[in-house]
Amino acid sequence: MADEQQHKQLHLNAFLMGVGHHEAAWRHPRTRAQSVLDVRHFQALGQIAERGRLDSVFFADGLAVGPRIARNTLAVFEPITLLSAIAAVTERIGLIATASTTYNDPYTLARKFASLDHISGGRAGWNIVTSAGVDEAANYGLDVRPEHEKRYARASEFVDVAVKLWQSWESGSVLLDEDLGVFADPKKVHAIHHEGAHFRVRGPLNSPRSPQGRPLLVQAGSSEAGKEFAARFAEAVFTAQQSLEDGIDFYTDLKRRLPRYGRRAEGLKVLPGVVPFIGGTEAEARALESEFTELISPDYALRQLSTMLGIDLTEHALDAPLPPLPPIHAIEGNKSRYQLVKDLAEKDSLTVRELIGRLGGGRGHRTFAGTPEQLADELQLWFEAGAADGFNIMPPYLPGGLEDFVTEVVPLLQKRGIFREEYEGLTLRDHYRLEPVDGGSDGQEWQAAQ
Amino acid sequence: MADEQQHKQLHLNAFLMGVGHHEAAWRHPRTRAQSVLDVRHFQALGQIAERGRLDSVFFADGLAVGPRIARNTLAVFEPITLLSAIAAVTERIGLIATASTTYNDPYTLARKFASLDHISGGRAGWNIVTSAGVDEAANYGLDVRPEHEKRYARASEFVDVAVKLWQSWESGSVLLDEDLGVFADPKKVHAIHHEGAHFRVRGPLNSPRSPQGRPLLVQAGSSEAGKEFAARFAEAVFTAQQSLEDGIDFYTDLKRRLPRYGRRAEGLKVLPGVVPFIGGTEAEARALESEFTELISPDYALRQLSTMLGIDLTEHALDAPLPPLPPIHAIEGNKSRYQLVKDLAEKDSLTVRELIGRLGGGRGHRTFAGTPEQLADELQLWFEAGAADGFNIMPPYLPGGLEDFVTEVVPLLQKRGIFREEYEGLTLRDHYRLEPVDGGSDGQEWQAAQ
Ligand SMILES: Cc1cc2nc3c(=O)[nH]c(=O)nc-3n(C[C@H](O)[C@H](O)[C@H](O)COP(=O)(O)O)c2cc1C
Ligand SMILES: Cc1cc2nc3c(=O)[nH]c(=O)nc-3n(C[C@H](O)[C@H](O)[C@H](O)COP(=O)(O)O)c2cc1C
Repeated sequence: MADEQQHKQLHLNAFLMGVGHHEAAWRHPRTRAQSVLDVRHFQALGQIAERGRLDSVFFADGLAVGPRIARNTLAVFEPITLLSAIAAVTERIGLIATASTTYNDPYTLARKFASLDHISGGRAGWNIVTSAGVDEAANYGLDVRPEHEKRYARASEFVDVAVKLWQSWESGSVLLDEDLGVFADPKKVHAIHHEGAHFRVRGPLNSPRSPQGRPLLVQAGSSEAGKEFAARFAEAVFTAQQSLEDGIDFYTDLKRRLPRYGRRAEGLKVLPGVVPFIGGTEAEARALESEFTELISPDYALRQLSTMLGIDLTEHALDAPLPPLPPIHAIEGNKSRYQLVKDLAEKDSLTVRELIGRLGGGRGHRTFAGTPEQLADELQLWFEAGAADGFNIMPPYLPGGLEDFVTEVVPLLQKRGIFREEYEGLTLRDHYRLEPVDGGSDGQEWQAAQ
Repeated sequence: MADEQQHKQLHLNAFLMGVGHHEAAWRHPRTRAQSVLDVRHFQALGQIAERGRLDSVFFADGLAVGPRIARNTLAVFEPITLLSAIAAVTERIGLIATASTTYNDPYTLARKFASLDHISGGRAGWNIVTSAGVDEAANYGLDVRPEHEKRYARASEFVDVAVKLWQSWESGSVLLDEDLGVFADPKKVHAIHHEGAHFRVRGPLNSPRSPQGRPLLVQAGSSEAGKEFAARFAEAVFTAQQSLEDGIDFYTDLKRRLPRYGRRAEGLKVLPGVVPFIGGTEAEARALESEFTELISPDYALRQLSTMLGIDLTEHALDAPLPPLPPIHAIEGNKSRYQLVKDLAEKDSLTVRELIGRLGGGRGHRTFAGTPEQLADELQLWFEAGAADGFNIMPPYLPGGLEDFVTEVVPLLQKRGIFREEYEGLTLRDHYRLEPVDGGSDGQEWQAAQ
């Protein structure tokens, strides 16, 4: 291993959404709105990220359209299906799909991820979410969204079951012995006989052990329950942090929880989000950001903000401050984002219009406008100050915003010796420098033997 | 349109399973057993089928491993994920995935198929199954498999809901009007407010109308309830028929049921299965078939047969006839296959060993051994006698069995003017010469505009 690879390296995930994270991205001339319906757009993004040697690409997901259909570019593609099509045109980039533990069955979902891991040769990751939205319940026969705490309780049991299913085929269980006529060794394939409060699942999984043993487990909730869940299961955490100080607090808090679950700090990578507007000069970058801010439709943004805060702001004056907000314990949706937006508005005494502008880029994720050097400085600062093991890069417009990051910022990080020049391993788990899941991997052996 | 395209054309689906349908295929030197774990094997099969201008490829699926793990090549990949990876390396071939109405949620599954249809540019099909296996229930919290009739009742409501969800975005609803800032026209995107015995689903679907409007609906059950279900929903039907006579009866019966649902005979294509052993001479083909039969492990085959008949034969003498069988009304699993196997054994007074040999190739589907000319004759005979609108081609070994069919049999069918020389349209629905689903397709328009 070369010397610079011994240095602590940061990790980069590209969070891809439609034609960009900025809510008005699809109206800006740097994007083609039609691309949201075109799989080739997303396949090309996967290839750009791989060219930049990023760890992974990631797709969010929600299970309802919501009331903002007129202005929302939304999710056309279901992430696992989409990532399978991206797997087919890439070789190394990790592939992280969001899926809900509230509205899925563990057997079905564990199989899907095993399948994606087989298809991609060990590049699958699962962003585990509990579906905080209010509209999702009604698509699954429920009158109201299950409570925050109950969602996380179900999520824990769900992941337990999924992990047992992925382990239900020991490594080495697939024999493919043509002479003896033995496909798999029945002694190494186990029923799991899970019986819990939420699920009864016999197993084994209907798919042999996948190349990574199981997908990378990713989590993105930052409430108390969310952090505890992350400490127990997550190998990477996406989080929204507005300031370096908040970033350090969150990072420290999360890492401190790990020993209680018998886990080491290196086993969980914290990746705060950043929405980069990149320009040749800082002024150019800021001007670009303003172009996007001006394209925001206030009525759409007001509805978005209303959903985020759980109160109706659609009739509220744009140039007034926020009305009084409910206390955090009354929030059953996305608790951590609620807190972040509340703090942001209060700290700088923002009017609603100003708040909307601040949130336009990343819905609460930090927006950064500057030169490639400035952005590299900022990322290095957070990384070395103990606020991040890497970043969730959220290009405000696509593909340009990712292309610029890869061609202008990545080489700077490489020159500074804090980001890989080449992939070191084959799997997503390798990219994140995580221990392999116990034992080898049947799939990979067969692939390697080709 | 050229003259020969006016002729009635037959349709060909390639039913792909592991390294072939013959249960001992993976032990034969014409296959490489490891391919069952390799996505590239399946991608190559999709490309071979497309080279042969076949209508579609199809993958079966089950939601449990079952007790025969030692001898079973089983499903490694979940079909929708797998077909998405095949979509990425093909352009025209239709992509049919099996999915269960008994162990899925309609909202989730409708979205998956919409996603596959978007990804493939309108090539998705759904083989609707009710999961007849006994082992699946225990992976989904149930003690026993729901009864045959109840499964079909749920299936009907499930498909109703899915169709409503696919229609919840009218065609033309996606505007992408950048100047007005209007992504979609809210007046053309509808909640469905479904409330039924099994499901409550508000909608709309979280994915815009897909290129085909909805996937091709395929069905493969042939019991009374299965046929009624097919008559109501199916646009293609896979079926196992041992003799031309049985084929004609089934075909006639099914087509007669259509007018009651306001449907025309052309709207449903009947595709009996055939397992072809192709050789330069008939003797060569038969010798090849024997090679495979000899590789069958009797203990595996006995378990397979026990499952099919719902009785335990594992201690039964191989050279004795079958013991008395339960009456058809007592069968809660695959009713039509039970009947077929029972009839086959009785008609020719087969011993268990002989029966196992007959079933080895296609689990009850018709096995055919002969020259390419003989196979083309046989297919043409069934097609012109009114037993088939096309065929479900089940290669006994892969990729060779598909390769031979495409290079040796397809050209004969083309020369006879009963199979296309080129694809006429873009979508799976086009290939099967079915009416487009009401209205145009947003996805396709955008793709065409590229
Ligand atoms: C970067 C990021 C991506 C997220 N993606 C999704 C998503 O795709 N679907 C979803 O339902 N929630 C998503 N969430 C929300 C979280 O999973 C979680 O529900 C939310 O943060 C509320 O959790 P908390 O109450 O623990 O803070 C995301 C959050 C972050 C920070
Ligand atoms: C060609 C063919 C393919 C089938 N594929 C599947 C499958 O993948 N999964 C499944 O559960 N059942 C599958 N079946 C079974 C049928 O869907 C159905 O459950 C079975 O025929 C019993 O239905 P019946 O009782 O109406 O005859 C298939 C049947 C045929 C003929």
